[in-house]
Amino acid sequence: MGAEPPRTVARPELDGARLLSDLDHLATIGADPAGGVSRVAYSAADIEARGWVRETMLGLGMEVRRDEAANVIGRYPGAEPARKPITLGSHTDTVPNGGRYDGALGVVAALACVRALRDAAVHLRHPVEVIDFAAEEATLGTPTLGSLAMTGGLARDALTRPAWDGRPAAAHIRDAGLDARGLNRAVRPRRVLAAYLELHIEQGGVLDAAGIPIGVVEGIVGIRRFAVAFAGQANHAGTTAMADRRDALVMAAPFVLGVRDAAVEAGVVGTVGVLRVLPGVPSIVPGRVELEAEIRGLDEAALDGVEARLGELASGLGGELQRATAKASVRSDPELVAAIEAACDSLGLASRRMASGAGHDAMVVGRYVPQAMIFVPSTGGVSHAPEEHTPPERCVDGGRALLGALLELDGRL
Amino acid sequence: MGAEPPRTVARPELDGARLLSDLDHLATIGADPAGGVSRVAYSAADIEARGWVRETMLGLGMEVRRDEAANVIGRYPGAEPARKPITLGSHTDTVPNGGRYDGALGVVAALACVRALRDAAVHLRHPVEVIDFAAEEATLGTPTLGSLAMTGGLARDALTRPAWDGRPAAAHIRDAGLDARGLNRAVRPRRVLAAYLELHIEQGGVLDAAGIPIGVVEGIVGIRRFAVAFAGQANHAGTTAMADRRDALVMAAPFVLGVRDAAVEAGVVGTVGVLRVLPGVPSIVPGRVELEAEIRGLDEAALDGVEARLGELASGLGGELQRATAKASVRSDPELVAAIEAACDSLGLASRRMASGAGHDAMVVGRYVPQAMIFVPSTGGVSHAPEEHTPPERCVDGGRALLGALLELDGRL
Repeated sequence: MGAEPPRTVARPELDGARLLSDLDHLATIGADPAGGVSRVAYSAADIEARGWVRETMLGLGMEVRRDEAANVIGRYPGAEPARKPITLGSHTDTVPNGGRYDGALGVVAALACVRALRDAAVHLRHPVEVIDFAAEEATLGTPTLGSLAMTGGLARDALTRPAWDGRPAAAHIRDAGLDARGLNRAVRPRRVLAAYLELHIEQGGVLDAAGIPIGVVEGIVGIRRFAVAFAGQANHAGTTAMADRRDALVMAAPFVLGVRDAAVEAGVVGTVGVLRVLPGVPSIVPGRVELEAEIRGLDEAALDGVEARLGELASGLGGELQRATAKASVRSDPELVAAIEAACDSLGLASRRMASGAGHDAMVVGRYVPQAMIFVPSTGGVSHAPEEHTPPERCVDGGRALLGALLELDGRL
Repeated sequence: MGAEPPRTVARPELDGARLLSDLDHLATIGADPAGGVSRVAYSAADIEARGWVRETMLGLGMEVRRDEAANVIGRYPGAEPARKPITLGSHTDTVPNGGRYDGALGVVAALACVRALRDAAVHLRHPVEVIDFAAEEATLGTPTLGSLAMTGGLARDALTRPAWDGRPAAAHIRDAGLDARGLNRAVRPRRVLAAYLELHIEQGGVLDAAGIPIGVVEGIVGIRRFAVAFAGQANHAGTTAMADRRDALVMAAPFVLGVRDAAVEAGVVGTVGVLRVLPGVPSIVPGRVELEAEIRGLDEAALDGVEARLGELASGLGGELQRATAKASVRSDPELVAAIEAACDSLGLASRRMASGAGHDAMVVGRYVPQAMIFVPSTGGVSHAPEEHTPPERCVDGGRALLGALLELDGRL
């Protein structure tokens, strides 16, 4: 009642074995006969997994609700009623025939953190919230659909976009027993959370190659996509002298290399993933080349510099660069980054700062509340595939870092 | 009877106006409402044009036959019965919606040469043969079908190949009232002709740009086609560091430029007309690039050199070059080239030697008898299009050069 609430005296300890068995159990839901896991957003397997998450939360004594987007939200009470919750989360949906770690690890680790508190009979100053976000993968045409719904960021056409099977997103949502139009009612007020922490597999090979167990995510990269066209002159490949040609592919080839060079020099990544040659006939000098390039980086100024350079390069080669889409980078909150690093230090876990090259729910939530992410290694950098793998001890390291950061933050915030 | 045959005393003169009006008339057969001419091989318009050629030959007092491939062959007798004919020819079939000069000019010019002889009441030492070859264009899946049939060079699958409309070539041949299986009966013995001369539009822009009325074709280029594959590693375009990538498009881009450079340095032409990026998704580092390259040149040793260099270049970039097809170059007969040049000199027509970058019936016949070709300018290098154009005076120049070469050869051979 009026007594001083209990503080973190005996440090709660993460049950690594239980974390791993939860991860194993989750992998049986939607297990693909061909290997890997298929828990596509709003499919029966996805809903089943969310049901398991909900039951687990209830078993931990959490208050649980499922919002209008099917985000599963559990709350473990804090000792100081006025405080906003510190939220831990990730997602349990997968791409078709995906891996067993992506998203799932972050959810079971968040549950493991609450379990550690409950087992130690500890309540932090802040409530601890765990969210299993819905539809993080882009299978419905919009990545991070659940966190966008929660933060009021859904695009107007999000429900009509074609899903992975060609049907509109809304049809999948309805099949799951949800009211597609009601998704906007999932919105929560801004800054209703004290902070958001997400543990996720790296999906790249940086930590694995460096032999470092923990990545402290400084931010999620901005992504800019460009459409680039080179207009040459289609002509007979036999009768047109080399000096008389305006070969659009010869114009475009240095641009491909220029994207690589500009990205390397600016410390960002740059990719030409699409290149179409028109008319695309062996005996005709290419008349037109259309390509799609993207650059990603944490530093918007660096992206500005690369974009300007690519624009000049394209013009210089006789082409034209047009920006198609741009998603701004999201910096992690410095206080949260410091808390994760302090936790890793006290746990004796080596860590390095890094950017996330892929989008995550944290990116969406980060426009709304302070956020940071913890990465664990992906063996060989493989992700979104049955071969996706993070060694068991690294999964447990990630859970321990998450718990450590939670405890650290509870004291700092 | 036993008297000395009449020799070329009064030089026969080409009737340029009649040549042009014949060309105009021929352009009305198969005239496309959209502009241009559509006389696709073995179509009704093509058969009608062959009928007109036959009638014109008969009107010139020639013996005419149509062989099993629908090649129309007319013979104007010579003064020395033991001599083989000097043959002039080209084709009257077109690509769909083609131009009015390609092929047609060579046929009406050949008829004009015979007309000049007849009008001057001259018989050369050699018989003069005119051939309107069937199906020179690749509309039936096999270019130079008629001349291949005449020289026994038809591929085994030539009749089953899909034509421009998807139906097999044999169906078009049967629709024209021919016996498709009988095509091989069109074969004539090797060396049954003394020489073969063909006037054709250049189809490139060399003569037009240089302002030279006559091109003396030294040979028809050899064509080598290559399939080139670059195997990289598909990966996430956001999470894969630049240093960790094996981007197949970055591997392939220097190859595109290398084809250009190697061709320029060797004095041949080289083209990458097809390039496929796999998987071809903006957010995935290209895992595989497949391209098709071709080189064309007169000098087989130069082509060997370029092929070797491209093989090394592909290997050096981590790719593999495989030869898909090779068609050897065909050199023009030096005696015929000299005769054309002598004729141009005596007519005051500027000429330059050049290679033909496209295939022609002369290429096929040239494996069988001595051949050479005469080119006239194509305005702007346009060909196989309604805009294809050769100025009237250049058409007449071409006819005069052809007649001059015929007279010259009659004396030399």
